[in-house]
Amino acid sequence: MQKGLKVATIGGGSSYTPELIEGFIKRYDEFPLTELWLVDIEEGKEKLEIVGNLAKRMIEKAELPIDVHLTLDREEALKDADFVTTQFRVGLLEARAKDERIPLKYNVLGQETNGPGGLFKGLRTVPVIVDICNDMERLCPDAWLINFTNPAGMVTEAVLRYTNIDKVVGLCNVPIGIEMGIAKLLDVDASRIHIDFAGLNHMVYGLDVYLDGESVKDRVIELLSDPENTSFVKNIDGIGWEPEFIRALDALTCPYHNYYYKSQDMLEKTKKEAEEKGTRAEVVLELEKELFELYKDPDLNIKPPQLEERGGAYYSDAAVRLITSIYNDKRDIQPVNTRNNGAIASIPNDSAVEISSVITKDGPKPLAIGDLPVAVRGLVQQIKSFERIGAEAAVNGDYDKAVLALTINPLTPSDSVAKAIIDEMMEAHKTHLPQFFN
Amino acid sequence: MQKGLKVATIGGGSSYTPELIEGFIKRYDEFPLTELWLVDIEEGKEKLEIVGNLAKRMIEKAELPIDVHLTLDREEALKDADFVTTQFRVGLLEARAKDERIPLKYNVLGQETNGPGGLFKGLRTVPVIVDICNDMERLCPDAWLINFTNPAGMVTEAVLRYTNIDKVVGLCNVPIGIEMGIAKLLDVDASRIHIDFAGLNHMVYGLDVYLDGESVKDRVIELLSDPENTSFVKNIDGIGWEPEFIRALDALTCPYHNYYYKSQDMLEKTKKEAEEKGTRAEVVLELEKELFELYKDPDLNIKPPQLEERGGAYYSDAAVRLITSIYNDKRDIQPVNTRNNGAIASIPNDSAVEISSVITKDGPKPLAIGDLPVAVRGLVQQIKSFERIGAEAAVNGDYDKAVLALTINPLTPSDSVAKAIIDEMMEAHKTHLPQFFN
Amino acid sequence: MQKGLKVATIGGGSSYTPELIEGFIKRYDEFPLTELWLVDIEEGKEKLEIVGNLAKRMIEKAELPIDVHLTLDREEALKDADFVTTQFRVGLLEARAKDERIPLKYNVLGQETNGPGGLFKGLRTVPVIVDICNDMERLCPDAWLINFTNPAGMVTEAVLRYTNIDKVVGLCNVPIGIEMGIAKLLDVDASRIHIDFAGLNHMVYGLDVYLDGESVKDRVIELLSDPENTSFVKNIDGIGWEPEFIRALDALTCPYHNYYYKSQDMLEKTKKEAEEKGTRAEVVLELEKELFELYKDPDLNIKPPQLEERGGAYYSDAAVRLITSIYNDKRDIQPVNTRNNGAIASIPNDSAVEISSVITKDGPKPLAIGDLPVAVRGLVQQIKSFERIGAEAAVNGDYDKAVLALTINPLTPSDSVAKAIIDEMMEAHKTHLPQFFN
Amino acid sequence: MQKGLKVATIGGGSSYTPELIEGFIKRYDEFPLTELWLVDIEEGKEKLEIVGNLAKRMIEKAELPIDVHLTLDREEALKDADFVTTQFRVGLLEARAKDERIPLKYNVLGQETNGPGGLFKGLRTVPVIVDICNDMERLCPDAWLINFTNPAGMVTEAVLRYTNIDKVVGLCNVPIGIEMGIAKLLDVDASRIHIDFAGLNHMVYGLDVYLDGESVKDRVIELLSDPENTSFVKNIDGIGWEPEFIRALDALTCPYHNYYYKSQDMLEKTKKEAEEKGTRAEVVLELEKELFELYKDPDLNIKPPQLEERGGAYYSDAAVRLITSIYNDKRDIQPVNTRNNGAIASIPNDSAVEISSVITKDGPKPLAIGDLPVAVRGLVQQIKSFERIGAEAAVNGDYDKAVLALTINPLTPSDSVAKAIIDEMMEAHKTHLPQFFN
Ligand SMILES: [Mn+2]
Ligand SMILES: [Mn+2]
Ligand SMILES: [Mn+2]
Ligand SMILES: [Mn+2]
Repeated sequence: MQKGLKVATIGGGSSYTPELIEGFIKRYDEFPLTELWLVDIEEGKEKLEIVGNLAKRMIEKAELPIDVHLTLDREEALKDADFVTTQFRVGLLEARAKDERIPLKYNVLGQETNGPGGLFKGLRTVPVIVDICNDMERLCPDAWLINFTNPAGMVTEAVLRYTNIDKVVGLCNVPIGIEMGIAKLLDVDASRIHIDFAGLNHMVYGLDVYLDGESVKDRVIELLSDPENTSFVKNIDGIGWEPEFIRALDALTCPYHNYYYKSQDMLEKTKKEAEEKGTRAEVVLELEKELFELYKDPDLNIKPPQLEERGGAYYSDAAVRLITSIYNDKRDIQPVNTRNNGAIASIPNDSAVEISSVITKDGPKPLAIGDLPVAVRGLVQQIKSFERIGAEAAVNGDYDKAVLALTINPLTPSDSVAKAIIDEMMEAHKTHLPQFFN
Repeated sequence: MQKGLKVATIGGGSSYTPELIEGFIKRYDEFPLTELWLVDIEEGKEKLEIVGNLAKRMIEKAELPIDVHLTLDREEALKDADFVTTQFRVGLLEARAKDERIPLKYNVLGQETNGPGGLFKGLRTVPVIVDICNDMERLCPDAWLINFTNPAGMVTEAVLRYTNIDKVVGLCNVPIGIEMGIAKLLDVDASRIHIDFAGLNHMVYGLDVYLDGESVKDRVIELLSDPENTSFVKNIDGIGWEPEFIRALDALTCPYHNYYYKSQDMLEKTKKEAEEKGTRAEVVLELEKELFELYKDPDLNIKPPQLEERGGAYYSDAAVRLITSIYNDKRDIQPVNTRNNGAIASIPNDSAVEISSVITKDGPKPLAIGDLPVAVRGLVQQIKSFERIGAEAAVNGDYDKAVLALTINPLTPSDSVAKAIIDEMMEAHKTHLPQFFN
Repeated sequence: MQKGLKVATIGGGSSYTPELIEGFIKRYDEFPLTELWLVDIEEGKEKLEIVGNLAKRMIEKAELPIDVHLTLDREEALKDADFVTTQFRVGLLEARAKDERIPLKYNVLGQETNGPGGLFKGLRTVPVIVDICNDMERLCPDAWLINFTNPAGMVTEAVLRYTNIDKVVGLCNVPIGIEMGIAKLLDVDASRIHIDFAGLNHMVYGLDVYLDGESVKDRVIELLSDPENTSFVKNIDGIGWEPEFIRALDALTCPYHNYYYKSQDMLEKTKKEAEEKGTRAEVVLELEKELFELYKDPDLNIKPPQLEERGGAYYSDAAVRLITSIYNDKRDIQPVNTRNNGAIASIPNDSAVEISSVITKDGPKPLAIGDLPVAVRGLVQQIKSFERIGAEAAVNGDYDKAVLALTINPLTPSDSVAKAIIDEMMEAHKTHLPQFFN
Repeated sequence: MQKGLKVATIGGGSSYTPELIEGFIKRYDEFPLTELWLVDIEEGKEKLEIVGNLAKRMIEKAELPIDVHLTLDREEALKDADFVTTQFRVGLLEARAKDERIPLKYNVLGQETNGPGGLFKGLRTVPVIVDICNDMERLCPDAWLINFTNPAGMVTEAVLRYTNIDKVVGLCNVPIGIEMGIAKLLDVDASRIHIDFAGLNHMVYGLDVYLDGESVKDRVIELLSDPENTSFVKNIDGIGWEPEFIRALDALTCPYHNYYYKSQDMLEKTKKEAEEKGTRAEVVLELEKELFELYKDPDLNIKPPQLEERGGAYYSDAAVRLITSIYNDKRDIQPVNTRNNGAIASIPNDSAVEISSVITKDGPKPLAIGDLPVAVRGLVQQIKSFERIGAEAAVNGDYDKAVLALTINPLTPSDSVAKAIIDEMMEAHKTHLPQFFN
């Protein structure tokens, strides 16, 4: 008899968990999970109970033999796991709110995964992920780590560079979202669309687009440069790319590119929203409260539709699809964060990239794309350097390197502003940055 | 009998010419120039006469057998030349003033070689330099082209990529200036200082610094991070780098790095100065008028000391030093803009880089530096992409590529601002951008 | 109604054609071929008739609506084709016999695709393939060229470098053969084995081996280094690799590696065989005669089992499998000869490599493998240089380059021997080497 | 007062030492040596005495204040040294004779630095050099290690990869010899010739040749391909390169290239010589005996002219020239073995290459050459792999890796022959290969 399949989910008390459960239920035929361990920390105990019980009801309704365990003991959860998924948030949404608010005071973008917010989320998260990896090395050395925790680029880089775990994949729903968007733009089913993705997490480009296997990039670029295509094109409150820019770029962008190619507009939009309705974290805090109220309902035994408004759509699908492909050696192509291994020229072999990869039991094998287009090489290189130096600062508690990482980030106006923001944020996040205060 | 040595100087009516003459006089022993042809265009005829006559008086005073020719006929000047130097300015200082003024309206840096100004100077200059190269191919195929015309990075890139002239060197006085500054900081003679330079024109880094051949980088970085070192450190009106930043960067910067690592401060400073005393071009316009008044003096037969205030110090020295080293196969090390040839990893072999090179009769041979430090790779790559796409736009009159080049430039806040600036500047420089208006 | 599917097979009179027909019949459900054009040259007319009629009978028996056309008019055959396959042999088996015989006189390996034989097969074949590509550009610019003609590495390199056809795939049965062999060694079904292939045609390595997706490389290497495993290991008349060698190499070899890692044994074996039973071409000449006798039988309407003894097993399967995957955008992984595109470090992006690739409608996308193992880099690089210089010699009729190509080939003992062999072979193949005799 | 200058020469009892002394005397003005420590091992004591006393007499005659110390205590010699030179021979000439004799039995080239002999010299030497480096780290961490001990490529690779000493330069007289030869061929003074060297030790190519700074490569290649130029061209007993080969190669070769591009001739020549007059080691053994007899003469106080016949001319000059350039930060160009640092594409940054470099106080800085010519890439890569795997085998006493290294060497006919040779040589050199026998 084959040993059962065990998954451990770090940050199991997350509001996203019902999506993950739905994913496991939907793909049970291909991935016969036997034990799901939802782990959280003391502060998240109540949420873990609520969402964990919903998970149990969902599985009961689906009539599947999956045992759901709720625990605060990470070691017990990791022991002999086959897959470990991570979706935790050090400092919870309160910390994210600070990541978003503080930079705005300095007229710098406040956002969860870009600029100062991204750096500080990294500084808080990397030491924890390194810790988890050290535990995994001991408790489940053969397990795959599927990381959704942001900033996924810096986190995956840190795992590859500073731990002994090399079975790691970083996951993001952005590429899937782009495929969905392009399908909508072309008015076809998303399954007929394929995109060659390459770049970094939240900095990924679509180098070619196929409809039924045939390149339609020219047509898509044409559509994207048509100001009439308000639906998909005007991705930020109706602002589309300048036709000349997108035509000459000759590649698909991701929504986060707005922060770089429309920095000023995005800063202003973010400031306005923070003022009018609160930062995204503040909005989500409210949404989450409501969600957890819903989750408490003992009659609820499906993923409530309201969760989709929370954002993060397709995450669950992406995660379980990836796990299923690894488990079954499916050899389908998925965009993931993995070791570059030469696939993108000029990025070190051992750095993390986000790239279309064949998913095998032996992990993702990235498709070689050679050189990135001239126009995007610099920005990708710059963000990779930000991620590398940020990860180094996080691991070593190196304050100078933190200042360097933020100064070279394209969203930062100067070394002095970088330092001022860092000083205020270090203080604000003190509890979660022990490596800098010893 | 050996054939005489002929130099043709395109833009010979420049106010800098006396420096060049001084250089040729000073190094006559090593570089026995016989004919110097100063060429200019119809609009520059008067200045050419004035400065040309001063040149003749200088040479007469030095009692050297150098024939100075003044001409508006470029072909005659190029014919059989051994060296061609270029120091022209398409559209004169009036065009530069527009390059500086217009971007400021959009809250974007107005500067001659960076951002929109750099792009437009390139768009105007590249077709002319391509033209000169085509003439050279016919009239003096063995001559060396020594280019000081800015933006020297984009111009050298264009020559390497779009002409058949490969005997080209781009020259800048920035590296020499850095060596002088470091010598002053250490209070030693500049001849004892050597720096390993690598990067791009106006984006060059000092990767190591030697005093009498021994690395003193740590000491220099320490000094540069000391807020007390106001003289050299506080390079923009008393603003120095944040100590944490420069320590972690662990490399010497060049003055133009302020536009990138202190973008906001530089923008404000530039706006303030434009308002209070006029843009740099406007200031220089006045200076030049005074200089040419001085030059007219029939008793003046030396380079007037007032020229040093004009800026551009060490240019003449750099130029004649370079020419002399090529001519004599000196094999000394000089920082120049040349074909990368693998010296800097991740930059194409056939792209221009600014790098410490051995100067031989066969041209500069760059010293291999391998990978640039992680922190600077992205910015260098980004500016290289800006230069490459800018050169392509200039050669082909490709409007979309111009928008792309400016959008990916780190000093531009968005694709829409890029387009708006380009539209206004295209109109303003219409006369000098025929490739975009046919 | 969809346009029908047309395949043109250059060298259609080959004895292999029945295998190809069998392949098209077997996969008709996925690849609904409507027209198959078998083209040959005047000298091959008789064989074309014989094998073409067999093909018609096979299709009739299979009751499929595929029209088989026999023609000597290549243009007619290429016109609007969807796929072009090439399996021709310039100079027929008589030329191959010379490729095998002549080098032996000089104590140098005589083999069809390696050493002097490979070079001369390339010199004869490349101009013809370039010609076909030029026709394709005009007559069927969207078609895929599936080349089985040897030397497939040099031929694919020549197409990529010297024609405007980039939809080209080179195909070889060696990788499939290795998978079959490993399956046998492990006593499992071949469908459960997967190998990461990388290298060049007839110089391909298996970098990892998977059974059901799990790496079993260590076990396979252990088995391969066990002298008891005579069946698979002792691939040349019972000679296996030295255990130390294969353990330290830590990669799977292909049968052609014997020519390089056991050069002396292979030379002697080849000489002995040539003496005792004739060279391979001479043996095959007899086999072919018998085959064509069989093919003439008007009652034969299947691929005769005797064809398998001819060698070249799995070719038909590999070819139709590849075509089917392209046509259906299957995205399965197959080892093919394709543009490197950065997949193997140190090989130019635009050179041909043989590598595991995802097969899409847009062609093969190679999986990035980064650096080849240290031990194999040099030999792969050397053969790539041989292929590149050989292709250049073939296209330009450059005698010096032919001498260079053969001298740097590891199987050649000296520049003088290289020249002597070339001189004799040039003369022997004169009719088929017009580019060298004008 | 400046601290004196101390040089330690490991293997000081070598017959070459008088050349080194002559070099120090000749360049005393630039390199004011105060202490020279000649170190040797117990077995070399007598020779050390003889040659050491001659050294003292030479210095006395030159009336220079250099103290010569003779010692068997390596630590004492290394203590606070400024330069360490190594010219030792593990196992003395007797071991070399075995390196030359044993392979011949297997019909494989017997030579000191190529093929099996090179490997075994490496296996014996690398552990000793690693040991010396470990001592240096402790006793003179700032000293430069100038290594002439062969195989200099493998030895320098081992120092770079397996020790903490990075101030290391490997030295060879081959490049100087080529410059001399070319000067003779052109009938000009050698000081007017400059060659761009790139490759590996004993596998170095001249990529361009200059006379007075102007490229004369075409002329030189023409001369080299002219069968009339017997003097330089016919470098092995009158055998010159085939004109077609050298013209197409379009680069200068080094004498050791004969082993690769004329393998068969060289093998036969070596066998014949071994038979007729003994191997090179056996010949040198006699020469050395005579030399030491001469050295004993108390009236001898100069380098005896007979030493030049010993071979190894220009070594002393190369060594003292290099040391003088480092000491004085001369920044002249010399071909040395140093860290690649990106200078040659496709060779790892941290591998040793032999390349034209600027010699500074901070060590050699290689000139970037980009890609090696297509024709030579493979062979260079193959020898680099041989050196890397050989060094690894030497450090770890890894028998399998030794078999692998020898099998991939182009001079070895098969894995089985490699193993047979290794087994016999391991036994023969047992005393000096402790790492393989524990
Ligand atoms: Mn994401
Ligand atoms: Mn400049
Ligand atoms: Mn094949
Ligand atoms: Mn040597």
